[in-house]
Amino acid sequence: MEGEPLSALCTPALVVDVDKVKRNAQRMMERCHQLGVQLRPHMKTHKTLECADIMTGGSRRCIVVSTLAEATFYADHGFDDILYAYSLPFDKVERCAALSERLDLFQVLLDHPDALERLRKRPLKGGRRWHVWLKLDCGNGRAGVLHSEPEALQLAQAVAEADGVELTGVYAHCGNTYNCKGVEQIQAVAQETTSFTLQFMEKLKAVGISCKSSIGSTPSCSHPVSDMGKLSEVHPGNYVFYDVQQSMIGSCGLEDVAVRVLTRVVGHCPHRNQLLVDCGWTGISLDGAGKLPTGYAMIEGHPDLKLLSMTQEHGRVEPISGPLDYSKYPIGSLLTLIPYHSCAAAAMHPVYHVHSEGRLMGKWTPTRGW
Amino acid sequence: MEGEPLSALCTPALVVDVDKVKRNAQRMMERCHQLGVQLRPHMKTHKTLECADIMTGGSRRCIVVSTLAEATFYADHGFDDILYAYSLPFDKVERCAALSERLDLFQVLLDHPDALERLRKRPLKGGRRWHVWLKLDCGNGRAGVLHSEPEALQLAQAVAEADGVELTGVYAHCGNTYNCKGVEQIQAVAQETTSFTLQFMEKLKAVGISCKSSIGSTPSCSHPVSDMGKLSEVHPGNYVFYDVQQSMIGSCGLEDVAVRVLTRVVGHCPHRNQLLVDCGWTGISLDGAGKLPTGYAMIEGHPDLKLLSMTQEHGRVEPISGPLDYSKYPIGSLLTLIPYHSCAAAAMHPVYHVHSEGRLMGKWTPTRGW
Repeated sequence: MEGEPLSALCTPALVVDVDKVKRNAQRMMERCHQLGVQLRPHMKTHKTLECADIMTGGSRRCIVVSTLAEATFYADHGFDDILYAYSLPFDKVERCAALSERLDLFQVLLDHPDALERLRKRPLKGGRRWHVWLKLDCGNGRAGVLHSEPEALQLAQAVAEADGVELTGVYAHCGNTYNCKGVEQIQAVAQETTSFTLQFMEKLKAVGISCKSSIGSTPSCSHPVSDMGKLSEVHPGNYVFYDVQQSMIGSCGLEDVAVRVLTRVVGHCPHRNQLLVDCGWTGISLDGAGKLPTGYAMIEGHPDLKLLSMTQEHGRVEPISGPLDYSKYPIGSLLTLIPYHSCAAAAMHPVYHVHSEGRLMGKWTPTRGW
Repeated sequence: MEGEPLSALCTPALVVDVDKVKRNAQRMMERCHQLGVQLRPHMKTHKTLECADIMTGGSRRCIVVSTLAEATFYADHGFDDILYAYSLPFDKVERCAALSERLDLFQVLLDHPDALERLRKRPLKGGRRWHVWLKLDCGNGRAGVLHSEPEALQLAQAVAEADGVELTGVYAHCGNTYNCKGVEQIQAVAQETTSFTLQFMEKLKAVGISCKSSIGSTPSCSHPVSDMGKLSEVHPGNYVFYDVQQSMIGSCGLEDVAVRVLTRVVGHCPHRNQLLVDCGWTGISLDGAGKLPTGYAMIEGHPDLKLLSMTQEHGRVEPISGPLDYSKYPIGSLLTLIPYHSCAAAAMHPVYHVHSEGRLMGKWTPTRGW
C-alpha cells in the first residue's frame, strides 16, 4: 500500500506522521544538546525499532524501557546501553541477569533493600557487575524511595558498597508534571525534581559516592529549566508522538501531535442525534474519560463533535450542541481522532501505519507483553 | 512451563481456568438445547482457536465475530458458518466478498440501504449470493434499524428482493441487559427484545418473507425466557469467561469467572498507605472506572483492598479503610485480580496462560486487529 493515501486503509487504524515524529525527535535532541545533558529516550510509547532509530539518531544506544519484553526486543535487534527503568521485579531477576551477561550495558533499577538482596544472591557471570540505578521519588508519588528520607541515602550506600553491584545512577520520574497547566507550572515541577535530585547527589558526594543522575517526563523535557543541564541524563518518551493530553498540559501544540486514529462512520442514528463510528475502545483505549469537552478524543476538523462513549468496536459520536447534519457524515466517510493519550492508543494496535504528508510509507510493528 | 504452578509465571499475566471455561460453555450449550434454540457463540471476548473449539463443541461451525480479522483468522483455521455481526463497513466489502466466495457460509450484517447498495454493486462470483442479516435495534441504542420504524421492514424487503443477495436472518443485540441488576430485570429485557424480534418476524411473514432470527447477550442467554425458544439462534459470547461486571448484573456467580490477572507487589509506600503492583492499564485496561468499591478490579481473597489507580505499568493498591499491614504483602508476592470486564482485560494480552486447578496447561494466542 506504499504511496497510497490514508483513505486506502481499513479502519480503525493508528497512523503516524513520520515527519512530525522526526521533528519532535530532532527538537528534543537539540534541546538536550543545548542543555548539555545526555538524552536517553524512553521507548514505552511506541515500542518499535523504527521509532527507536529515529529517537536515538540511529545509534541504537542509550535507551530506557518500561518492560523486560521491550528490553529483550531491543537487545535482539542490536540495541545496547538499555535501562530497564522499573523497580526490579523479583520474578524477572534471572531474565535480567541473562541480559546483563549478554549486553555491554544492561541496567536495572531498584528502590528497596530486598531488591538489592536479590541481586547479591544472583552474581553475574564473567566478573560482570549489576548496573543499578536507584529510583527516587521527588514528589511524583508512584515508585521510588522518598528523596528526603534517610533510607534513600542508606540504600544508595548499600548499593555502592555491595559486591558484584555498581551504583550507576539516580533516577527520578516527574510524572507529577501531568497535573500541570502551562509552562510555568511545568517548569516549577521540573525545577523541584531537579533540585531534589541534585541535593541528593550532593549528599552522595559527601559520603564519597559519585554516579549519574537522570530525571524525565515529556512535559519537563519539552520545557526544561537550566538546572537540568547539571544532570547527567534526561529520559522523556511520549514527546515523539505527543497527544491531546500533552497539548493541554502545555508540552506541545496540537500541531505537534504525530498520531491519529482513523475511523469511519458505520451508522446513522437520527432518533438519538448520533453517529456510530468503527473505533471502540479496542481502537483508542478508554484513557481520557471525563477529561475533554469532546469526550474520549478530539475529532480533527470537527470541534463541534464529541466522542461520547465506546464499546468494544463502536464509538458513539454526537454534536456538542444542536442537531447533527447527517449529509456531512455519510456512511463510510472518514473521521480522524486525535488521541487523548498516545501511549494508551498505540497500545491497542498490533501495527502502526506510517505516512509522510498523507502518503503511506510502510508499517511499524510494536512489541507487546512483559 | 506445563505442569508448573501459576506462581511460575512472570506478571502481569492473564490466566484462564480451562475447567471453568468448559463448564461455562457446557452449561450454555445445555441451556440452548433445552430451549430448542441454536447457539451461535460469539468469539469477541477471547479470539482464540482453542476457546472457539470449546464453545462450538469441536464443530468449528456456527460462530459470530466482531471483526473481519477474527473472521479471517477462523476461516484460515477451518471454521465455517461465520457471521460477521458488524454493520457492513464500506472499506471492507472486498474482503467480505473474498470470504463469501471462499467459505461455505460467510454472513454479513447491515442496517442501512446504502450497505445493500454496496453489496449489489459487488456481485459474488460463481453464482453465489450474499448472506445478509438485518440488524434490528430493539432498545439497545447502538447499531441497527429501530424495530418499530417502517424503514426496518422496508429494508428487510429490499434485501429479500435484491439480486445476488439473500436475507438470511434478523439479528438483535440486547446489550441493554448490561444496565440490569438481577435475574428479573435481565429477563424483562430479554423478553422485550425477544417479543420485538418475534413481532418483526410476524411482519416479515405477512409480506411473505421467512428467515432466521437471533438475539443475544450474555445476561439474557444466561437467564433465558422461554420465548427465546421461538427464535432460531442466540449469540452470547462473554459467558465463556464471565467477569465481575456479569456477576454484578446477575448473569453468573463470582465462582463462575474463569479469568484472572496475576500481578505482583513491586513497591511499598507506607507514607501513602499504598502498595504498588505490576499491573497497570496495559495489564487489565481502564474499564470499570468508578463502578466498584474495590476500584478497577476485585482482588481475590482481599476484599479490604482497592485497586485505586493505574498508569501504564503500575497499579496503586490501598486498603478500603485503616492502615495497610505490609507484612502481609511482601515485595514480590502475588495478588490475583478478578477483572471487571474480561473482554477488555483479555484485549490487553498477547497470550493467555491456561491452567487446570492451578497447574499450567499451555498458552492460547488470540488474534488482534481489524
